[in-house]
Amino acid sequence: MFPTQTYVNRRALLKKRIGSGLILLLGNNEAGMNYAANTYDFRQDSSFLYYFGLPFAGLNAIIDIDNDREIIFGDELTIDDIVWMGTQPSLRDKAQRVGISDTRPTSDLRKYLDAARAKGQTVRYLPPYRAEHNLTLLRLLDVMPGAEKPDVDLIRAIVDMRNHKTEEEIAEIEKACDVTADMHITAMRMLRPGMRECEVSAAIQAVAEAAGMRLSFPIIATVNGQTLHNHYHGNVARSGQMLLVDAGAETEMGYAGDMSSTICVDPKFTSRQKEIYDIQVASHLAAVGALRPGVPFKDVYELSCEVVCEGLKQLGIMKGDPKEAVAAGAHAMFYPCGLGHMMGLDVHDMENLGEVWVGYDGQPKSTQFGRKSLRLARPLEPGFVHTIEPGIYFIPELIDLWRSQHKFEDFINYDEVEKWKDFSGIRNEEDYLITDTGCRRLGKKIPLTTEEVEAMR
Amino acid sequence: MFPTQTYVNRRALLKKRIGSGLILLLGNNEAGMNYAANTYDFRQDSSFLYYFGLPFAGLNAIIDIDNDREIIFGDELTIDDIVWMGTQPSLRDKAQRVGISDTRPTSDLRKYLDAARAKGQTVRYLPPYRAEHNLTLLRLLDVMPGAEKPDVDLIRAIVDMRNHKTEEEIAEIEKACDVTADMHITAMRMLRPGMRECEVSAAIQAVAEAAGMRLSFPIIATVNGQTLHNHYHGNVARSGQMLLVDAGAETEMGYAGDMSSTICVDPKFTSRQKEIYDIQVASHLAAVGALRPGVPFKDVYELSCEVVCEGLKQLGIMKGDPKEAVAAGAHAMFYPCGLGHMMGLDVHDMENLGEVWVGYDGQPKSTQFGRKSLRLARPLEPGFVHTIEPGIYFIPELIDLWRSQHKFEDFINYDEVEKWKDFSGIRNEEDYLITDTGCRRLGKKIPLTTEEVEAMR
Repeated sequence: MFPTQTYVNRRALLKKRIGSGLILLLGNNEAGMNYAANTYDFRQDSSFLYYFGLPFAGLNAIIDIDNDREIIFGDELTIDDIVWMGTQPSLRDKAQRVGISDTRPTSDLRKYLDAARAKGQTVRYLPPYRAEHNLTLLRLLDVMPGAEKPDVDLIRAIVDMRNHKTEEEIAEIEKACDVTADMHITAMRMLRPGMRECEVSAAIQAVAEAAGMRLSFPIIATVNGQTLHNHYHGNVARSGQMLLVDAGAETEMGYAGDMSSTICVDPKFTSRQKEIYDIQVASHLAAVGALRPGVPFKDVYELSCEVVCEGLKQLGIMKGDPKEAVAAGAHAMFYPCGLGHMMGLDVHDMENLGEVWVGYDGQPKSTQFGRKSLRLARPLEPGFVHTIEPGIYFIPELIDLWRSQHKFEDFINYDEVEKWKDFSGIRNEEDYLITDTGCRRLGKKIPLTTEEVEAMR
Repeated sequence: MFPTQTYVNRRALLKKRIGSGLILLLGNNEAGMNYAANTYDFRQDSSFLYYFGLPFAGLNAIIDIDNDREIIFGDELTIDDIVWMGTQPSLRDKAQRVGISDTRPTSDLRKYLDAARAKGQTVRYLPPYRAEHNLTLLRLLDVMPGAEKPDVDLIRAIVDMRNHKTEEEIAEIEKACDVTADMHITAMRMLRPGMRECEVSAAIQAVAEAAGMRLSFPIIATVNGQTLHNHYHGNVARSGQMLLVDAGAETEMGYAGDMSSTICVDPKFTSRQKEIYDIQVASHLAAVGALRPGVPFKDVYELSCEVVCEGLKQLGIMKGDPKEAVAAGAHAMFYPCGLGHMMGLDVHDMENLGEVWVGYDGQPKSTQFGRKSLRLARPLEPGFVHTIEPGIYFIPELIDLWRSQHKFEDFINYDEVEKWKDFSGIRNEEDYLITDTGCRRLGKKIPLTTEEVEAMR
């Protein structure tokens, strides 16, 4: 946990920005897998963590701006809890640690809200993203599931605060990034032909867990790298294939790392693999070279797409003017995802608060296939932390679909594409901080070029 | 997956047992951790798995007994789903695999239920255990959260079927038990003074994952074994301590293993540790020796408790008649949990359907501290699969509480107990099948006695 003053200051700033009303911040509960008591690994809500720091289930908080009160609602442990789950500091002691002296039993929460609403106070809350949040809002505020009205002022204030990382947050993120790098280096060192994907994913998860961290998102470790979020680990990695690994660690405080690498199953890449890999690296480096305050990330994305199109044109896979191809959206055949996303207490930071606020500052998102998956587009500012992860993918189903629709025939040479249909996909990913003058890579360096990867094998 | 006929037969038997009405079986959905798209590892509902076999999110099923229809409701993949998550067989093909030819879009489910209710059909469903189930029942049947009325006939029929494991289920459980044993043997081989608990838990999780399995429940690997379900892994294991490991693997089909072991951090146990350990083993072996059809598990539990009391009496920790001590509940100071629980598609099998049905055949449970945690009490029958896991724990908070209340002073020698207050706890656990004539241990043997554990170190 950060020093008490961090949480006190964060809440003071939030109160100042919002000005009036009452903020209801829901903490998360335990979530049952196949019955209530067999729970998933507990994960606290990130905004609750940001303002109240406590990583325990069953807590909710109120910041009553109008009456200048900050209250944590929760219940003390019973002797049965202690026998089964172990002892813990009292709620009062935990709350003290984050600068809160007012704690009350959960049963008082509804009463407090009723009284506030009776006095005409505005009750502000964030969008629910777990079914339990819908139930809690129904129980506390009589809002029917689906009829919730999250508070936009609250969302914008929180997004602005959490988007700008402080020094202590950056140090914490860098810890996650270092362990994340170790996960990738472990994969690069261990991979051999005949190994199952699950052996690699098991080993890299163990790297995070043994460091006292957890995964920041479910591991991707697949020979079918053309599927962007492929969590199936049942295949055997065979000679001639590549293994795409996208994995990250999360610190005990909840800060995430997120990196990707694409590893040859053999000691060396084939020349065919290198042809595409080199284009991905060129796109990656062009994007990194463009990072500095004031530059819209949308422009960095366009640049990375143009480099991909230019490279694929050299191979005869694409044709025409790269800039025009990107403007039309033809690149999305091979690059159907964004270039990167904000990263912090969530690996896709604040995705639950709405990408349009986090990555677009309220501006509308494109609906074009590919471009619509760009999570970050706004001008960069010092303190932003985000990923850089261009990719090149050959997705057979998408190739067949677009070919049958005669899409972008001016830019895509379908006869040539057919020859690459079984290529799979390549993605490399690093994490960057925007500084006052440019950018800084976070965490240990992982191999990026084919030569660097091969040196690890 | 089992052969198609298995699922066809299971549904046919269920229909026959229930006789009339309509069964609504809810499959599970993806569950978001810190935002909707960052999901926990998907786990299908176990009753859905039992009758419909499909381990995919977003499915629900109806067995319309009155109209002799079996329908799976779900939606086909879009091109965006395929790009991000990979391709899959169509819902029609998946359903065929489990003997279902009638598949319909999710949007038809409410209509189907409305029509059934309009015709006066009884709609039967199971108890909700995820918040998403409450929301789904609200959306489909207008039942307010908390006002659900699960169908007792349905519960009893499913419990009776799932309680009696078939040969193919036993083979699957035994696969889980073999990997579970490997997890414990890995812990025994690797543990060294100075190692962090999380290093052990990381390594044994990796054993399950590398075998293509997952955890059947969150790992317990703790030097504070006196806390029954301690999931904190931040301590360092020091010379002189013991590490209690309770962990199990779950097969791809969802069948669980569940074993425990208590390992000396040094190569050998101390003589003080052996004194308690030997009592636990004696209790364990007495319980196993009593397992056969017709014997109430409650009697086996009482026997295991008496052995513990007898042993603690020899050490001067308890006094008086062991049988009387157990009847009064004094043993629960050291043995506050049950002796075992049913195990199958859930590690605590069907806990969501109600322990009183699963383990008590509808008979009431005791409310006595300790005895109330006994999950299984009914007479044993061939095909039952359950754990055996007596334990001896010294829980400082419980000792202080009972001593201050002068509880069971005829049976507990508190002055002597004080000397053992920092002992922590010991549990060993194996999995058993009740056969026609007795019982059979499932899976590879793990070390049980101190000599067997020391031989692994």
